[in-house]
Amino acid sequence: VGKPIWHTDRIYGDTTPPGVVMGLAWTSMGGSVLYVETVPLLAPDELADGDAAREREAAQPDAPRPSRRGGGSLITTGKLGDVMTESSKIAHALARRFARTVDPSNSYLDRAQLHMHVPEGSTPKDGPSAGVTMVTSLLSLALDKPVRPHLAMTGEVSLTGLVLPIGGVKEKVIAAQRAGVKHVILPSSNERDYVELPAKLCEGLTPHFVSTYDDVYKVAFGPSS
Amino acid sequence: VGKPIWHTDRIYGDTTPPGVVMGLAWTSMGGSVLYVETVPLLAPDELADGDAAREREAAQPDAPRPSRRGGGSLITTGKLGDVMTESSKIAHALARRFARTVDPSNSYLDRAQLHMHVPEGSTPKDGPSAGVTMVTSLLSLALDKPVRPHLAMTGEVSLTGLVLPIGGVKEKVIAAQRAGVKHVILPSSNERDYVELPAKLCEGLTPHFVSTYDDVYKVAFGPSS
Amino acid sequence: VGKPIWHTDRIYGDTTPPGVVMGLAWTSMGGSVLYVETVPLLAPDELADGDAAREREAAQPDAPRPSRRGGGSLITTGKLGDVMTESSKIAHALARRFARTVDPSNSYLDRAQLHMHVPEGSTPKDGPSAGVTMVTSLLSLALDKPVRPHLAMTGEVSLTGLVLPIGGVKEKVIAAQRAGVKHVILPSSNERDYVELPAKLCEGLTPHFVSTYDDVYKVAFGPSS
Repeated sequence: VGKPIWHTDRIYGDTTPPGVVMGLAWTSMGGSVLYVETVPLLAPDELADGDAAREREAAQPDAPRPSRRGGGSLITTGKLGDVMTESSKIAHALARRFARTVDPSNSYLDRAQLHMHVPEGSTPKDGPSAGVTMVTSLLSLALDKPVRPHLAMTGEVSLTGLVLPIGGVKEKVIAAQRAGVKHVILPSSNERDYVELPAKLCEGLTPHFVSTYDDVYKVAFGPSS
Repeated sequence: VGKPIWHTDRIYGDTTPPGVVMGLAWTSMGGSVLYVETVPLLAPDELADGDAAREREAAQPDAPRPSRRGGGSLITTGKLGDVMTESSKIAHALARRFARTVDPSNSYLDRAQLHMHVPEGSTPKDGPSAGVTMVTSLLSLALDKPVRPHLAMTGEVSLTGLVLPIGGVKEKVIAAQRAGVKHVILPSSNERDYVELPAKLCEGLTPHFVSTYDDVYKVAFGPSS
Repeated sequence: VGKPIWHTDRIYGDTTPPGVVMGLAWTSMGGSVLYVETVPLLAPDELADGDAAREREAAQPDAPRPSRRGGGSLITTGKLGDVMTESSKIAHALARRFARTVDPSNSYLDRAQLHMHVPEGSTPKDGPSAGVTMVTSLLSLALDKPVRPHLAMTGEVSLTGLVLPIGGVKEKVIAAQRAGVKHVILPSSNERDYVELPAKLCEGLTPHFVSTYDDVYKVAFGPSS
């Protein structure tokens, strides 16, 4: 039932590689899943994670070495509007700080030159609700860890990590269910919208209501998942 | 039958030099072949491949030397619209990573300052479907290897190398056949469009349906071709 | 017969200094000759050619010295439209590579900061057909060699040096004849337009039909000219 709005709904399988996270979009024509893809513009061995960098430094203590912090950058593509482009900057700033709380030795996001894309390339997209998806895409890449399978998410983030409400809950839930999603992350402030949905639409879905990015992180990467 | 829309249909012969790849375009007026041309702005010997760089370093072990990675850039011309310009960035990011999987010592794209042009210069062009063509043009240059003769291709690429569906399959196939193309690369998700075409339009054409850039690479450069 | 459209028709005499080349333009009001002028923004001794650079290095072997390649740039003026501005970038890229095939030790264009102007400054100009003229202007400067006298040219160039067809052949030929031009370079693909012109329009003109920039170079600078 229902025709996907974007014909690349589910371009990935049940699991996604590190750096790729499924989000939920909403247009006047209905909901859709979308993916945020982030990749490094430079090879992993040149943008070594904390451990590798420490090993290299131990092996060559006197070698000149690049700054451990600084130089991090992010370019975006996918016909993102102004608000979504700003979202990517907020996500980058938040992910950089969040990565340090997870692993103080991991300076990947502080140094990596990254490229974030949101297929399809010719579909205009805008709005702040991919915030949590973007942060998670960046962290997934920095930690070299895929997110849990069958997961989709939506939510604006503030620069300090608060998760703010979004629109189109019903359409997004329909799109998630249609795409075979099992776990869906939604802002706590949208819980009232979710509980009012017909039970049929929520069948097979486990909702996770989140107030801060901490909560998102635990669902996406946590051992308790 | 049918008049070329762009009068530079087939500006190259049956084979193209490294860095030049034939794509397929689609406008409201019909299909057309087009070429993506990429050249270095600096001489090959200054942008030495892995071997040459290693030799140079062996000869002058103490000489200060530029970063082995980093500095890669790409400018584009050909009256490309926003989406096609973004496509070129996605292609550049993907080609850089893909080149490393083909030959880890080849850091050409990480260092080269490149210029990509899509003739004719005064014809406005847009859309994401030259993605695979752009990636292939960059790899062809980096590997200093022409693509197989009589080849044309169309397909959007995601940043991780998935090949996404495109429009105008019929018009593009007509243009390919008219231009003497023998092998045509199309997204797997467009196979259903292709099989519905009248047999006459496909005469003399071998279609190659691809899901990821890996598949494109094998058709364009592979020994099995 | 016929009034020049741009009142700077023939601002130079029969010969032009290195860096200045006569082109042919075409507007809805008729044809016109125009000049592409390129000059260095830095003094010649700072942009020494291969020989001079080698001498300087021999004299001061330990002195820090700028990169032998890299740093080349080009700014343009003359109210050029988007396509003509892109043409100048294509011309710059092509001229850099072409100069190396003519003289591998000549890195002038790789290092020089250049300014290209197309008088008159207040006349808007656009289109790709000054491509060959721009390349020739850059090479003339790099080689410090004027082009042959009484020469005018028109043709789009691709990034790899193919010469592509242009419009307004009749109007351009009329303008060339009126301006006292003796040798006119035209794209091979426009030969059919030329041979259809009334003999009177071609009186006194030697046409040179070219397929690649190589052909243009031989006519403009070659010993066989």
